[in-house]
Amino acid sequence: MTHHTPSTTDDTTGIAALSLADRAGLGSGRNFWQTKDIGDVPSITLTDGPHGLRKQTGGVDHLGLSSSVPATCFPPAAGLSQSWDPGLVERVGAALAEEAQAEDVQVLLGPGVNIKRSPLGGRNFEYYSEDPHLAGALGTAWVTGLQDGGVGASLKHFALNNQEHDRMRASSDVDPRPLREIYLRAFRKIVEDARPWTVMCSYNAVNGVPVRHSRELLTDILRGEWSFDGVVVSDWGAVGGRLRSVAAGLDLQMPSDGGTADAEVVTAVSNGQLDEDAVTVAAERVTALARRATAARRETSFDDETVEKHHALAREAAARSVVLLKNDGADGRHILPIAASGVTGSVAVIGPFAETPRYQGGGSSHVNPTRIDSPLELLKERLAAPVTYAAGFTTDGSGRDSGLLAEAVEDAANADIAVVFLGLSPDQESEGFDRTDLSLPPEQLGLLRAVRAVQERVVVVLSHGGALDLGEVSDLAPAILDANLLGQGGGAGIADVLTGEVNPSGKLTETLPARLADTPAYLDFPGEHGHVRYSEGLFVGYRWYDARNLRVAYPFGHGLSYTTFEYDEVFGQPDDDGDGITVTVGVSNTGRRAGREVVQAYVSVPDSDQVRAPRVLAGFGSVTLEPGEREEIEIHLDRRDLEYWDVRVGRFVLEPGRYVVHLGSSSRDLRGSVEVDLEGEEVHVPLTLESTLGEALAVPAVVDALGDVLGGMTGDGGDGLGVDMVKMMASIPLDRIITFSGGAVTREQLEELLEKANS
Amino acid sequence: MTHHTPSTTDDTTGIAALSLADRAGLGSGRNFWQTKDIGDVPSITLTDGPHGLRKQTGGVDHLGLSSSVPATCFPPAAGLSQSWDPGLVERVGAALAEEAQAEDVQVLLGPGVNIKRSPLGGRNFEYYSEDPHLAGALGTAWVTGLQDGGVGASLKHFALNNQEHDRMRASSDVDPRPLREIYLRAFRKIVEDARPWTVMCSYNAVNGVPVRHSRELLTDILRGEWSFDGVVVSDWGAVGGRLRSVAAGLDLQMPSDGGTADAEVVTAVSNGQLDEDAVTVAAERVTALARRATAARRETSFDDETVEKHHALAREAAARSVVLLKNDGADGRHILPIAASGVTGSVAVIGPFAETPRYQGGGSSHVNPTRIDSPLELLKERLAAPVTYAAGFTTDGSGRDSGLLAEAVEDAANADIAVVFLGLSPDQESEGFDRTDLSLPPEQLGLLRAVRAVQERVVVVLSHGGALDLGEVSDLAPAILDANLLGQGGGAGIADVLTGEVNPSGKLTETLPARLADTPAYLDFPGEHGHVRYSEGLFVGYRWYDARNLRVAYPFGHGLSYTTFEYDEVFGQPDDDGDGITVTVGVSNTGRRAGREVVQAYVSVPDSDQVRAPRVLAGFGSVTLEPGEREEIEIHLDRRDLEYWDVRVGRFVLEPGRYVVHLGSSSRDLRGSVEVDLEGEEVHVPLTLESTLGEALAVPAVVDALGDVLGGMTGDGGDGLGVDMVKMMASIPLDRIITFSGGAVTREQLEELLEKANS
Repeated sequence: MTHHTPSTTDDTTGIAALSLADRAGLGSGRNFWQTKDIGDVPSITLTDGPHGLRKQTGGVDHLGLSSSVPATCFPPAAGLSQSWDPGLVERVGAALAEEAQAEDVQVLLGPGVNIKRSPLGGRNFEYYSEDPHLAGALGTAWVTGLQDGGVGASLKHFALNNQEHDRMRASSDVDPRPLREIYLRAFRKIVEDARPWTVMCSYNAVNGVPVRHSRELLTDILRGEWSFDGVVVSDWGAVGGRLRSVAAGLDLQMPSDGGTADAEVVTAVSNGQLDEDAVTVAAERVTALARRATAARRETSFDDETVEKHHALAREAAARSVVLLKNDGADGRHILPIAASGVTGSVAVIGPFAETPRYQGGGSSHVNPTRIDSPLELLKERLAAPVTYAAGFTTDGSGRDSGLLAEAVEDAANADIAVVFLGLSPDQESEGFDRTDLSLPPEQLGLLRAVRAVQERVVVVLSHGGALDLGEVSDLAPAILDANLLGQGGGAGIADVLTGEVNPSGKLTETLPARLADTPAYLDFPGEHGHVRYSEGLFVGYRWYDARNLRVAYPFGHGLSYTTFEYDEVFGQPDDDGDGITVTVGVSNTGRRAGREVVQAYVSVPDSDQVRAPRVLAGFGSVTLEPGEREEIEIHLDRRDLEYWDVRVGRFVLEPGRYVVHLGSSSRDLRGSVEVDLEGEEVHVPLTLESTLGEALAVPAVVDALGDVLGGMTGDGGDGLGVDMVKMMASIPLDRIITFSGGAVTREQLEELLEKANS
Repeated sequence: MTHHTPSTTDDTTGIAALSLADRAGLGSGRNFWQTKDIGDVPSITLTDGPHGLRKQTGGVDHLGLSSSVPATCFPPAAGLSQSWDPGLVERVGAALAEEAQAEDVQVLLGPGVNIKRSPLGGRNFEYYSEDPHLAGALGTAWVTGLQDGGVGASLKHFALNNQEHDRMRASSDVDPRPLREIYLRAFRKIVEDARPWTVMCSYNAVNGVPVRHSRELLTDILRGEWSFDGVVVSDWGAVGGRLRSVAAGLDLQMPSDGGTADAEVVTAVSNGQLDEDAVTVAAERVTALARRATAARRETSFDDETVEKHHALAREAAARSVVLLKNDGADGRHILPIAASGVTGSVAVIGPFAETPRYQGGGSSHVNPTRIDSPLELLKERLAAPVTYAAGFTTDGSGRDSGLLAEAVEDAANADIAVVFLGLSPDQESEGFDRTDLSLPPEQLGLLRAVRAVQERVVVVLSHGGALDLGEVSDLAPAILDANLLGQGGGAGIADVLTGEVNPSGKLTETLPARLADTPAYLDFPGEHGHVRYSEGLFVGYRWYDARNLRVAYPFGHGLSYTTFEYDEVFGQPDDDGDGITVTVGVSNTGRRAGREVVQAYVSVPDSDQVRAPRVLAGFGSVTLEPGEREEIEIHLDRRDLEYWDVRVGRFVLEPGRYVVHLGSSSRDLRGSVEVDLEGEEVHVPLTLESTLGEALAVPAVVDALGDVLGGMTGDGGDGLGVDMVKMMASIPLDRIITFSGGAVTREQLEELLEKANS
């Protein structure tokens, strides 16, 4: 599914001839956003993304946060992910490449594919999902779209950068299986399938080792296991002293530190502290990147036509990313869409987010948009009915405003339907800090209660980056649109869905929990004293709620449509090589509107010998159908999404046995399933003296040899003590037979036995 | 509160003169239960406890599980703990010493003070509680009672031996705070307060290091921090090769391995692999123990009088350990006690546990009792009303028996009240394996449903070692007695409580959860592939349910009485040295029967800077009151129960600030509280280059020096990006100022600044 820009790492002619100082110099920026031009190595520009270009104008300040050129603000990852549409994401990536080319930017700093470990994560709006398969699939599409346009991606933040608290230092303490199966999985897929030009080394530490010093992450895994051949660039300011980072495999320290670290590198090589080859290799990689990027330059401009074209794409992406959480109705008539709901009087639009939309998050990803669609203006344009507007509350945190409230309630009482825009204001969530709760501000809930008291037909539209506690909103509002953060076209996207011009097909990419106290990381977020234990292990997001059988407000993958879909029987079969699985199902549009259905494939391994989540997303696809139309959809599940990480052998293993693939309209609305047997591979762990009797007796060659010894050891069999001797014995390590035989069995005998068993 | 047998570790005259082989020989047993007599060092006998003596008779088999001499079977720890009565536990310890002396046993292998991490733990019946303060207090009493009788204790299983699955090998992977504050805490208290003669090294590993190889646990913490001066003995068969264990601080390997390891030790010393001093020190410690134990021998016999006296104590302990979980009633008349409930017809006793009681668990602690009280016989003796008996089901796992069921239902229908004995059979829980669910067998629940259908007045009596899911039982039965495992006097204890001769005062020492899926360790028990992550961290037992605000079936500390108690206002004050807290409260018996109330003190630190459970048990006490009587109770909270482990400085710290002490009749029935301010101690962590700007700016000496530098770094302050610059900046480590100043600030300048700040 991916098209690669060919690797040019070999094009490093002449680098070895550069002085050590020059080679060291290539390892850091010449200013905040650019690499150095040294010899015939060109300078390139890297700048923030990922949902729009943030190229700073004028003088560059030391923190890189001053104002930027206008650029299209596409939906941030949290919003865009709700499209579940890799094709759309790839088109967004292609548009971003056009804008980057127009501004002479060679690398755009994205995509961000960290896992939403806690809904409180301050930067969650920059990330795709709580699920690594989904994050990997969408990130692959984004990188492909961007790089096909001749602009490099910077896959970030590698790795386990899942919170803002103590973000430049805290250690993410994680066990091997969640490390591999959850937190590295999207990175792996994107590196292997889309080959990003750069990977960004994150600020934090992992299991006590700062990522910038982690040879395991930056070299062994990234290059060794995944064959990454690009540049590892530091997150801006992630590197202090560079010596250990160069040794670990970091190529480019950003931004410039005025040459401090370059000089330290030269000194360290001179006095034998640092291997010169490491410096040369890093310089070669930066050179290769600079040449590849320069070769991919295209002359283009961000002219009015492109501005319009990209705004249209931003609108399309926004509309596709809206999730219809709830749409009640009486007598078979749902409240939404408004045009179809028989509105005869006026439409009361309430809430400042209708007029001044909340459409992106704060921080390094903050784009200066070319324009901003107002939901209110677009609703006025598109609805035949009169539209009133009242703010109802302010977003400045000043609390309840009884004047505004009264006005809104009056509007609502006089209208045929009220559309209430609620959400989080920009100062409630941003890069740099985590949230501490999931609540909407009390004045907003107060407004909603007051509106609901006078108007039964209430639609709530939610704007926010992080997940919200929707308990009370769900109790009050018969219809809820989750508009998340939708970028500059969000106003149009919301209006499109409210009026029915677009039939919503977005699905949640993060569980909306019933209570903050139910969330997996609740007791370990954000940690303390520099450490955060990833205590939920594999059970991140829906894996946790499913495993603990907890009620949620809205499950992962949930999203309604204005039409309905039926699933036929599910078929499935292993690939010819036995590695992956292909499932097919017929889907029919059984309602009265054209619509798109996102079909989700969740895998269970019910007889697994491993700890497993009940169901895990391993693939998805979508169909767009006219009323009455039926189409077959085929979803391929990749071996990488079926494997588990085996800690005994330190690699991914496809467990042999029965795999059940459930197809669902959400993670908790499963419509059918099919069982597929996979041959997989048996893991053979050599027996050692620490192996248990139980493990040894599973090896036929050992049974006879051990039989004689064990016969004499059981005494009266413990019958009098109410113990199960077989279970007791099975857990005894082999070397303890020496003791339990009173020395009758020797270590030498056991070692002989092991040799036989393992050969 | 404790009386110590004086340490005699200095009495090791002449040991250095023994040959290396002899000194090595003292490091392992001469057979399964005895140490060697070498030179003038006497042999001593160690044998299983802890709720009774299990001295094997006749030939000793290799696994030490053959039959044993008759001994009083006191309630196992799980049952006895429900008394919340250290005085009673100390008397049990004293009685055990008498029996050990009579049988020439010098060390009894107990108490077991491991924490009940999961209700599924197969050996939970041998342990006191999910709470470390309670386990520590009861363990201290047991050791004191035993050792005052001249018999040594063996504090076990040190440490983190909280499951049976893969029990001789699995690594308990735990973070520093739960290690110290939960899992080592009871061990520490008992070592410091009761000075056990021996500590037993457990089978498992901790954070990847087998405990038998852990110098950190066996020497640095146990001897270095806690001043343990006794012998570290291996759990039976915990040690394979002994070299690393001797180096780690293990003194005595049990049982005998025929001299294999002794010879290996000699060889290792000879070729320089092992320090001879380590061998000598171990030999000296074993010698000191043997001499101390021999000196403490008392001539006594286990005569009929003692048998009777100890059985009476076993009965008393049993009755005090029964927990009245539920006792509904109409018109102010509760179902229990039976004598007071106006029984006019017959009493239907149902269930085989009434006739053949379940009173202890299987495994090494299994005692051959001197006699066994039958609840059925004792009820017949004590009730005036006619008593019928029907089995209703079998305990052999064969399932529903419709004949038995019909008979029981008929009895119940014809009776005035039905007392139904339910529980787990011995083969459902034992040393050697963990349980996989919390359910009662379906045939027992079926019987209860059938009985309840014909009889409203149903009392359920539960016999079991591990916690049960009581959802359906609670729905069906208006009265429930938790009889746990009560030892050989359990039949009398149950009859005493049912008939009202004893007013129950037991309280749960383990939460009874609403669902297995709610339990803290549910997703990480028992781990896989040799590792189990203690993912719930500090939040073990009630700490978890309280922190996550989960409903439970019956909370920790719960237990009803046949009378009622009222608490007056709570008073509290810090100790003169500011370390501990003393709280007092007046308690009145407001009902119509004499009764005992266990008052529990839970501490909150609401403004804490540390991760904390909402409330933590830090003390308890009890009062016995006649109807209408009032008495003041004083509870002292020890500094050790108020401190937290600070990972930055690697020690316990008493945080300064406000402590709230809640007094309750259970962990969720809090009757009053008092606030006490403690001076505590501020933790000063020296600033380093990895300290953040936020941390540095908290030090007044740094503020001015940094001010100039920072002024130039903020650019336009990021106003346009919707970020909070103060929060963003606060998380930047000091050494990154070099980068963010573009090299204008040097490492040398920062190092100077640190020197100033830290001096």
